[in-house]
Amino acid sequence: MQLIAFDGGFEIRHDTQQLFLHKAGSPAFFVGCGIEKIEMYRGNFDIEDYLESRIALTHARIEGNRIALSTAPDQTALLTATLKIDGDDFKFTFETHDPRLNRFWLRLPAQKQEHVWGCGEQMSYFDLRGRHFPLWTSEPGVGRDKSTEITFKSDVTGKAGGDYYHTNYPQPTFISSRRYAAHIETTAYADFDFRHEHFHELQVWAVPDALEIRSGKTFLDLVSKLSERFGRQPKLPEWVYKGAILGLKGGETNTFTRLDNALNHGIKVSAVWSEDWCGLRQTSFGSRLFWDWSWQDHQARYPNLPQKIRELEARGIAFMAYATPHLCSDGALFPIAEEKGYLALDDSGKTALVDFGEFHCGIIDLTLPEAAQWYGDTVIRKNMLEMGIKGWMADFGEYLPTDNVRLANGVDAKLMHNAWPVLWAKCNADAVEAAGQTGEALYFMRAGYTGTQRYCPLLWAGDQSVDWSRHDGLVTVISGALSSGMLGNAYHHSDIGGYTSLFGNRRSKELFERWAEMAAFTPVMRTHESNRPGENFQFDHDAATLAHFARMTRIYCHLAPYLKQLSAEAADKGYPVQRAMLLHFEHDPETYANQEQYMYGPDLLVAPVHKPGVAEWTSYLPAGEDWVHVWSGRKITGGQRITLPAPIGQPPVFYRAHSRWAELFSELAAL
Amino acid sequence: MQLIAFDGGFEIRHDTQQLFLHKAGSPAFFVGCGIEKIEMYRGNFDIEDYLESRIALTHARIEGNRIALSTAPDQTALLTATLKIDGDDFKFTFETHDPRLNRFWLRLPAQKQEHVWGCGEQMSYFDLRGRHFPLWTSEPGVGRDKSTEITFKSDVTGKAGGDYYHTNYPQPTFISSRRYAAHIETTAYADFDFRHEHFHELQVWAVPDALEIRSGKTFLDLVSKLSERFGRQPKLPEWVYKGAILGLKGGETNTFTRLDNALNHGIKVSAVWSEDWCGLRQTSFGSRLFWDWSWQDHQARYPNLPQKIRELEARGIAFMAYATPHLCSDGALFPIAEEKGYLALDDSGKTALVDFGEFHCGIIDLTLPEAAQWYGDTVIRKNMLEMGIKGWMADFGEYLPTDNVRLANGVDAKLMHNAWPVLWAKCNADAVEAAGQTGEALYFMRAGYTGTQRYCPLLWAGDQSVDWSRHDGLVTVISGALSSGMLGNAYHHSDIGGYTSLFGNRRSKELFERWAEMAAFTPVMRTHESNRPGENFQFDHDAATLAHFARMTRIYCHLAPYLKQLSAEAADKGYPVQRAMLLHFEHDPETYANQEQYMYGPDLLVAPVHKPGVAEWTSYLPAGEDWVHVWSGRKITGGQRITLPAPIGQPPVFYRAHSRWAELFSELAAL
Repeated sequence: MQLIAFDGGFEIRHDTQQLFLHKAGSPAFFVGCGIEKIEMYRGNFDIEDYLESRIALTHARIEGNRIALSTAPDQTALLTATLKIDGDDFKFTFETHDPRLNRFWLRLPAQKQEHVWGCGEQMSYFDLRGRHFPLWTSEPGVGRDKSTEITFKSDVTGKAGGDYYHTNYPQPTFISSRRYAAHIETTAYADFDFRHEHFHELQVWAVPDALEIRSGKTFLDLVSKLSERFGRQPKLPEWVYKGAILGLKGGETNTFTRLDNALNHGIKVSAVWSEDWCGLRQTSFGSRLFWDWSWQDHQARYPNLPQKIRELEARGIAFMAYATPHLCSDGALFPIAEEKGYLALDDSGKTALVDFGEFHCGIIDLTLPEAAQWYGDTVIRKNMLEMGIKGWMADFGEYLPTDNVRLANGVDAKLMHNAWPVLWAKCNADAVEAAGQTGEALYFMRAGYTGTQRYCPLLWAGDQSVDWSRHDGLVTVISGALSSGMLGNAYHHSDIGGYTSLFGNRRSKELFERWAEMAAFTPVMRTHESNRPGENFQFDHDAATLAHFARMTRIYCHLAPYLKQLSAEAADKGYPVQRAMLLHFEHDPETYANQEQYMYGPDLLVAPVHKPGVAEWTSYLPAGEDWVHVWSGRKITGGQRITLPAPIGQPPVFYRAHSRWAELFSELAAL
Repeated sequence: MQLIAFDGGFEIRHDTQQLFLHKAGSPAFFVGCGIEKIEMYRGNFDIEDYLESRIALTHARIEGNRIALSTAPDQTALLTATLKIDGDDFKFTFETHDPRLNRFWLRLPAQKQEHVWGCGEQMSYFDLRGRHFPLWTSEPGVGRDKSTEITFKSDVTGKAGGDYYHTNYPQPTFISSRRYAAHIETTAYADFDFRHEHFHELQVWAVPDALEIRSGKTFLDLVSKLSERFGRQPKLPEWVYKGAILGLKGGETNTFTRLDNALNHGIKVSAVWSEDWCGLRQTSFGSRLFWDWSWQDHQARYPNLPQKIRELEARGIAFMAYATPHLCSDGALFPIAEEKGYLALDDSGKTALVDFGEFHCGIIDLTLPEAAQWYGDTVIRKNMLEMGIKGWMADFGEYLPTDNVRLANGVDAKLMHNAWPVLWAKCNADAVEAAGQTGEALYFMRAGYTGTQRYCPLLWAGDQSVDWSRHDGLVTVISGALSSGMLGNAYHHSDIGGYTSLFGNRRSKELFERWAEMAAFTPVMRTHESNRPGENFQFDHDAATLAHFARMTRIYCHLAPYLKQLSAEAADKGYPVQRAMLLHFEHDPETYANQEQYMYGPDLLVAPVHKPGVAEWTSYLPAGEDWVHVWSGRKITGGQRITLPAPIGQPPVFYRAHSRWAELFSELAAL
């Protein structure tokens, strides 16, 4: 990595690549002032900016490793960038002396044929080139496609339709096909724009702490470097390899009767996951969970839960629950937290209350270490882990409002909003660690941001619609796994069959089965009944699906030795379990924009069927390898698209002919 | 008007009002660079801006009447503003020496309680405060409300849904309740932003020629001044006072049979308007007009048209037609215009062709005086006026594409797009004048821009949906009349019953009748069969409506003496026929944001029923006047809301008790 100053500017090069360029005629840095308007409605945000100024910092004065940036030679510097070169990497740290400057743009050189991946968990587009991506943790939207009726209706009824870039987990980090990774260290709202031919423009609504550029010899190197930077997850717990996590609720009888029925049909079960362990409340929208995270005070639905958990444990089955970093105002925990001063305040100094739909909640002030620790000790250790609960959905990290909320650390909620998912993950991680259960207790989150990697052992893809749609259906889960995987999130999974059932959109048997076929080739298989269990197809709705699902759990378990090796590799090198094909086939540009297929580890290629009513499916097999079709044993040379039968039960999966796991893989067809 | 310089800035005051303020801490001028993306699809535009810079010109150096604006005392001026104070008015003319600067923002001082009106013909909002208004002539949209199904479907199927600010006729001019009028002289894309509490911000995508500020003692003074500035229309022709213009098409037999039927039912008719005088073509969307503006070559539908026109003339009825500034590529006029070089070219130097839906058209290059004159001589004089045609819809002024079009005057089509409606109006005006028919031939346009006032004798409100909707139905026509009237457009009218019938939206009998009741109190009554004549209610669909409509035409004709006086007043002072109530009641702030009612001249107040199924209606009667309800004769003191019976046939209309026209008005009830 080399800084080359020239008259009127400078560049930073690595080998043949120009990774940074600033010159008077095309400056790399801009600063300015804006007045934003950010309004939250149940996790969906209206965000507008009124830009008062945007100033090109055309003049750079280099003094040692400090670069003073101004509009003209005789003007005072508005921004100082301090450069640190470290082997194949470099970093700029930024300072400004003008506190009014709250907008920042940075340009990186780009090439026409360049591809770009990452920016957190992106559900619509894996290759980010040609679009811009606002980075702000939020509900991802229902439909996420302004041309569909579902999106329209969701927008009109609840501002909830979303768009291609909405995600629970954004991150201002990407990997370029030019073999570098860029990261902006900030928690402010950002917008990364990859639409321009000759530059990428990274916008931040604050002067960020730093820009970090890492170069790598291979894409896998870069993933590994980012994983080192952002933190690694513990290995998967042993118990999860035993089968699927069954999402079952509706109280004790229903849950455990259906569990027994599943087991009787040969379904391999690692855990029962009951969201409603904490009780329910009735609203005009239907039943909602009671957001007071304990079983002790809400025993009606699971009167014998402690005993049930022990019984399950004896049968080798874990029990999982649900929690969020909020406490409902009519629960038992709320007054305790309020009295201790552990809830965020509003501008008038009262406890801030967030409307979650006919009930209001206080927000655990996660910027206050005592508050986070109290929540961890009380909810996570005492109320969950000590009851024998082995994991939970750690939900709703996206919901920190930005107005009328004051946090204990004194930082504007606009700057803490993106940080919130990570504080929430850390709260979980710290409590689990304190209980000595790191790598054993498995909580899963949809919300994320920079650092999620360190504190969240398992991502879940959020709330897909129960359909095949391009921007909110089955196929989006693949993009979510691949993009988050590029940034060092090794473990990703999704609700089998999707979650959101609105406006008459209902999960079909076919969708459930196709989704289960994909989930068998992911680190964790988990069902969810959806938001309307009674109206949507469930795994136990008929004998054929019970049998199909049982077989998929057998496949998952059969692959456990392979998955354990992937988990070891993730801990060791930071490689994700589900990998973009380009990570193993960077010599084959056909793989660069493919977001419909993935590598399950280095040796298995999975091409999920994501459309209804198909009997065959066309897959792309990367070049330079011989492949074996799992179900037919047919050998196929890579570097071609191939159409093969893909009936229900035979998802398009291929393995490398020379894999050391070939024998294991060859046994799948007989399961 | 007084310029007051002070340390670090200056202000311009008129009496007690501060009309302009510039100081270092809150500069009035900003310049910058942007890269716009403007895409047209059938008159609807996708417009995006990538803003590279926005520079506050904080430093002003005043030298005589020239103000040099820069970022700092020691920096070169980026903008020079030359001030000319003229009595109660002032004007800045602008110059820049940096040709790259293509963005300009200007702030005017604002007050919290201020109201703002104008910006052309605004269909959704008369009082512009609290919103911003992009100013770009375009299709207005179908539905114009992102929360409605019709808008959604129009957006998805044809990018045609529109929004509140879309209008055929924008104009960068407004009147403030602080009793000044502001105008920016430019044809570039602009966006006037009235959302800020302490300033209005006027954005232009070019350095504009000038800012003009006029102050006035009254709002009527300001309207008069603007009318003087932008031009006045000729008086209405005498023939139009004779009754309604009937929009009838479908060929000779259908048109004239229905005319006779209308006359037999007592409908007073001033003209027959047949769009299809020029013939039709069949497309997959249905019948479309044949865009080759002559009867001579397309006689099939009206084989005896010249004779029919003479017969009509003898009966005191005019005949009206239709034209646009385009020629279809398969017509007789196209090759003539092309050979003469009168059609706009594309980037490759060939004739630019615009897709109008299964047919393509050349664009008359209206920047070329010979081309405009040829069109005027050929289409307007020879093909229309000389046949005895007395008027026409002069349509489609909004359709100048901005890419791949080269105009003869060498100016970028992006800067000519907004100018196009005025060039089109001037082409009509010049041809009519050359034929000695100014004030006699009546063409009407929906497209407009600064200067439309001078060249277009009659506005028409464009294509409302055939419904009662807030943003595209009957009520929007009122806002259109009031806002355009503030800028000196004296004559406004609309398609009775609306035009656009899509996605099952159909005109009802009730809508037709309510709309006709409003039209009787406008300068021109005109029916339109809608885009789907067979599926929508027409004036002659039943005997009751024929009788109702006949009565409304009698009312219109009965008011002709009053209307003639309004027309004289318009020619004399520039007052519009339909007036915002505030023009006569500026002492009553209740009138400032009312866009549901209007004054028809100084003495009649009209409060159209714009909702279905109502039997009574609440009207606001301005303070300081006694009013008489036209149908009951009931006297009512102003300054109150009053609810009165408003059955079909009795639109809420009131007159000033002491009007010199009181007797005429009192006779309306008996008609």
